Amino acid sequence: MRMYDIIMKKRNGGELSEQEIRFFIEGYTRGEIPDYQVSALMMAVYFQKMTEAETLALTMAMAESGDMLDLSGIKGIKVDKHSTGGVGDKTSLALAPMVAACGIPVAKMSGRGLGHTGGTIDKLESFSGFTTALTRENFIENVNRVGIAIMGQTGDLAPADKKLYALRDVTATVDNLSLIASSIMSKKLAAGADAIVLDVKTGSGAFMKREEDARALAEEMVKIGKNAGRKTVAVISDMDQPLGYAVGNALEVKEAIDTLRGRGPADFVELCLTLGSRMLMAGGRCADVSRARQMLENVIADGSACRKLAEFVEAQGGDAGMVSHPELLPKAPIVCPVPAPADGYVSRILCDEVGVCSLLLGGGRETKESVIDLSVGLVLCKKVGDPVKKGEPLAFLHAGDASKAQEAVRRYLGACMISDAPPAGTPFIKAVIE
Amino acid sequence: MRMYDIIMKKRNGGELSEQEIRFFIEGYTRGEIPDYQVSALMMAVYFQKMTEAETLALTMAMAESGDMLDLSGIKGIKVDKHSTGGVGDKTSLALAPMVAACGIPVAKMSGRGLGHTGGTIDKLESFSGFTTALTRENFIENVNRVGIAIMGQTGDLAPADKKLYALRDVTATVDNLSLIASSIMSKKLAAGADAIVLDVKTGSGAFMKREEDARALAEEMVKIGKNAGRKTVAVISDMDQPLGYAVGNALEVKEAIDTLRGRGPADFVELCLTLGSRMLMAGGRCADVSRARQMLENVIADGSACRKLAEFVEAQGGDAGMVSHPELLPKAPIVCPVPAPADGYVSRILCDEVGVCSLLLGGGRETKESVIDLSVGLVLCKKVGDPVKKGEPLAFLHAGDASKAQEAVRRYLGACMISDAPPAGTPFIKAVIE
Repeated sequence: MRMYDIIMKKRNGGELSEQEIRFFIEGYTRGEIPDYQVSALMMAVYFQKMTEAETLALTMAMAESGDMLDLSGIKGIKVDKHSTGGVGDKTSLALAPMVAACGIPVAKMSGRGLGHTGGTIDKLESFSGFTTALTRENFIENVNRVGIAIMGQTGDLAPADKKLYALRDVTATVDNLSLIASSIMSKKLAAGADAIVLDVKTGSGAFMKREEDARALAEEMVKIGKNAGRKTVAVISDMDQPLGYAVGNALEVKEAIDTLRGRGPADFVELCLTLGSRMLMAGGRCADVSRARQMLENVIADGSACRKLAEFVEAQGGDAGMVSHPELLPKAPIVCPVPAPADGYVSRILCDEVGVCSLLLGGGRETKESVIDLSVGLVLCKKVGDPVKKGEPLAFLHAGDASKAQEAVRRYLGACMISDAPPAGTPFIKAVIE
Repeated sequence: MRMYDIIMKKRNGGELSEQEIRFFIEGYTRGEIPDYQVSALMMAVYFQKMTEAETLALTMAMAESGDMLDLSGIKGIKVDKHSTGGVGDKTSLALAPMVAACGIPVAKMSGRGLGHTGGTIDKLESFSGFTTALTRENFIENVNRVGIAIMGQTGDLAPADKKLYALRDVTATVDNLSLIASSIMSKKLAAGADAIVLDVKTGSGAFMKREEDARALAEEMVKIGKNAGRKTVAVISDMDQPLGYAVGNALEVKEAIDTLRGRGPADFVELCLTLGSRMLMAGGRCADVSRARQMLENVIADGSACRKLAEFVEAQGGDAGMVSHPELLPKAPIVCPVPAPADGYVSRILCDEVGVCSLLLGGGRETKESVIDLSVGLVLCKKVGDPVKKGEPLAFLHAGDASKAQEAVRRYLGACMISDAPPAGTPFIKAVIE
């Protein structure tokens, strides 16, 4: 088998066999097939697309290119959740304790990653002492004992995907549904869960700006998951404005705690209930959505979800006292309002721009080496559709330094549009694909 | 400017500016732009094509990526000839002396290359002592004094093309007209001629198997040449069977000498007269084809073309006595016939397969390191349309070793089809594009 023939076949519109895809992924992972042949193939895939069978084969080959996590030591059906990412996305922080409190084991690998804020692990480090440096044995033991454990991604999880994504990123070959879907799903499959619930975002703050693209990606991923023998469901939700009110690491942790205490923002609560109910159903805890939502509402109302968070934080070395006293979480020295420039209604919030504000304030990483300030970020006061009076705060910025705060204020004003009439509403949950 | 944006622009169907093309070619030549970005761009070009302006810009950027030969020291209009290659293509060996004898200076760079036989330089080395290791000064002085000089390609002639072609060759991105045409023309432009006559082959032994593809390539190259300010003409000729009768290095030299002595094969003579007349016209020696053909026929008839070959061989250190005594050229120890298996007419000769016979006998190079046997090859006895009786020789193989000869006989029998009825004739010269 020769890589040249594989490129030629795809270029000419042929369907690659599973053997051909394995040959290319394995050879590439081992460094035997050079980048320049792979990038040519990726561009051919961009133009010729991949069939369902090719996409599955690619996903499996990438999943199996490194370690496949063995979660068989954990009792029960393991349900993983994955978000395509957005601004203010603190979902795991509240959702994991909620479903764990309902008896679904949460064994999660999380990343740090680049972005407007840190990843789930960075956010959790707002709890002083918290660590994700668990051995595999501890990880599994914690899940069995506490119900939740989160560990950092091992370097050898789907290394083919890591290498291929880095190459696609610099050769303008990211934008292909099969490639995007297989990249996400290969990591999920390698991470060993029995069922996968996908949180696919759409809107100005999402990777998929258009709802039809988000839907197509969701369908592609659900197909892969099912073809790989895992129960898979996708929820498409709005990311045309930040999720909830808080954007920033410790600020998001606080909002997640508020949510577990029954005082969460409506959109965020709705997302947790929608995703959570699908996780309970996938995990075999109940058969219908309304019963599942009820269970989740109960673990919030009776405080068990919040206690689960505290248990989990403590089990990983963190200061669980901060769960009951969120005022002890890292705090920025400067908190300044962004005053509304006019009367009217908030008609749009450019979500990506809000992310940039968080980044400007130091809440995210521009490069792998960036150091995150966990205390900084924004808390919105007005969301799309809210009436506002001139001078009222649109948001509060939490900053470490006054000049950065000034820049972020300017940027936020540019991101938040005010109109005379209220904007037409759009549903927050767009669809559930199963 | 970023290579990423250039790839993206082409991928999305945009037209690259001259600046963008220069940026990419210059950066790639200097090693600053990696192979993997260039191969992705080449695949995008394969799918999105290039406009006439892009193709010209690419050709010029590649031509100017290394040395541009300065032929201004040579008196008169320098006309270069280029063939897209085929089996038994000894055209330069006869054509150069013919046009030089008519007063057109021939200042040629030639290669060795891979293939069924050697390149022009290998063939010329059949004259013992012949060398192409000339200084530039000697090269120009020889052209002025003798009328012809041939030197080996310098390493720095269109290095961008060399690098890009090698990459395309392993990434399935060769097959694009703009890229093929710009690759050929960049070298021709860098080689400094004032006018270019292109010999574009079509048929089973040619790079372009189909006549319409050969025509499209010819048109593309003529457009580039004209846009670059050089008088350019293309002749499309048949390569569905070998050119002339001889295939092999010394064997082809002998056929070229025969041709200069007025005893050449009809197709080969026709090709030399057609290309030669266009060269004379491009060089300003005469205004019409029939006058030009007459001049060329005259220099054959009066022996001056053959004397020109001898002068040229001598000027480059070769044994000119071999021109009048071709029996002194390298000779293979074994000469064996390929007997016709049946009565009938030769209906087809698979030209590529004849090339393989020559390669099997040791007449060509499979890798850069292969050593060529100048003496071996084939001399056809019957060409397409010729009647043949069972047992009559279809060809004679000239071999260095009996087992190779046996293998080549078998292969030749597979390549030569015999039918009951004579095949329909096709014109040898298909078109002249100007």
